[in-house]
Amino acid sequence: MTKWPLPEPMRLALEAARAGAGEGEVPIGAVLVKNGAVIASAHNQPRTLSDPTAHAEVLAIRAAAQALGTERLEGCELWVTLEPCAMCAGAISHARIARVYYAAPDPKGGAVEHGARVFEQPQCLHRPEVYSGMGEAEAADLLRGFFREKR
Amino acid sequence: MTKWPLPEPMRLALEAARAGAGEGEVPIGAVLVKNGAVIASAHNQPRTLSDPTAHAEVLAIRAAAQALGTERLEGCELWVTLEPCAMCAGAISHARIARVYYAAPDPKGGAVEHGARVFEQPQCLHRPEVYSGMGEAEAADLLRGFFREKR
Repeated sequence: MTKWPLPEPMRLALEAARAGAGEGEVPIGAVLVKNGAVIASAHNQPRTLSDPTAHAEVLAIRAAAQALGTERLEGCELWVTLEPCAMCAGAISHARIARVYYAAPDPKGGAVEHGARVFEQPQCLHRPEVYSGMGEAEAADLLRGFFREKR
Repeated sequence: MTKWPLPEPMRLALEAARAGAGEGEVPIGAVLVKNGAVIASAHNQPRTLSDPTAHAEVLAIRAAAQALGTERLEGCELWVTLEPCAMCAGAISHARIARVYYAAPDPKGGAVEHGARVFEQPQCLHRPEVYSGMGEAEAADLLRGFFREKR
């Protein structure tokens, strides 16, 4: 049986996650797409950058906003290998990202379908469309492998 | 009657907020303190920096982490003029900040005592001590004045 191939942005997000693991960072990757073109790609780097806000999503959002010269990423899609945390969900909302695709759910730190459920708050000013599950097994395997080696 | 003076870090946070208003940014300021010394100060700059994550808290946290060369701001205090949003509350938690002092509550965008209540989630890995109210009138006046002029 041949598996249906992953959409290209998710394949790239997993590749970014893998690069992070190679640097000793938790392997989470994110890719920002506008009109079908990748405009930013990043992986978690809080240790490398001495920056507690340097999650893959925040780094990709900041890079894309720089590239476009605006704080509003209207019409953009964010592809990320793990369910965003409260910080990243807030950043996604502030950036007015249109669609979020995440691979694996994160019951411990996620804030989309777990915990703070940032986009479900009545006060949330911008709610992206959210899709999950594509690449879940690959993303979860990367994280499991990383934490197994750490032990 | 003489008003009890504001603690120095809150006075500085209000000063930073005022500087932001002068640049056309929403006047919110934040100051990071370690062992009684100010190690970073910032104001909201999403427009100026083309960065939707450039809230005062995130900028102060990033600057402090850079200055200390670590992603963990253990033992640090964050003084901010407005109740942090979900993004900033998440960043505060990731940075392991010990204490947060905020001036005015923010029913529309706050995520500490409103909305996502990030620190109250069972999954929240690090909860700072939180104090609010000092400088509330000054902080709220600054914001009201700013939005009045914008209309």
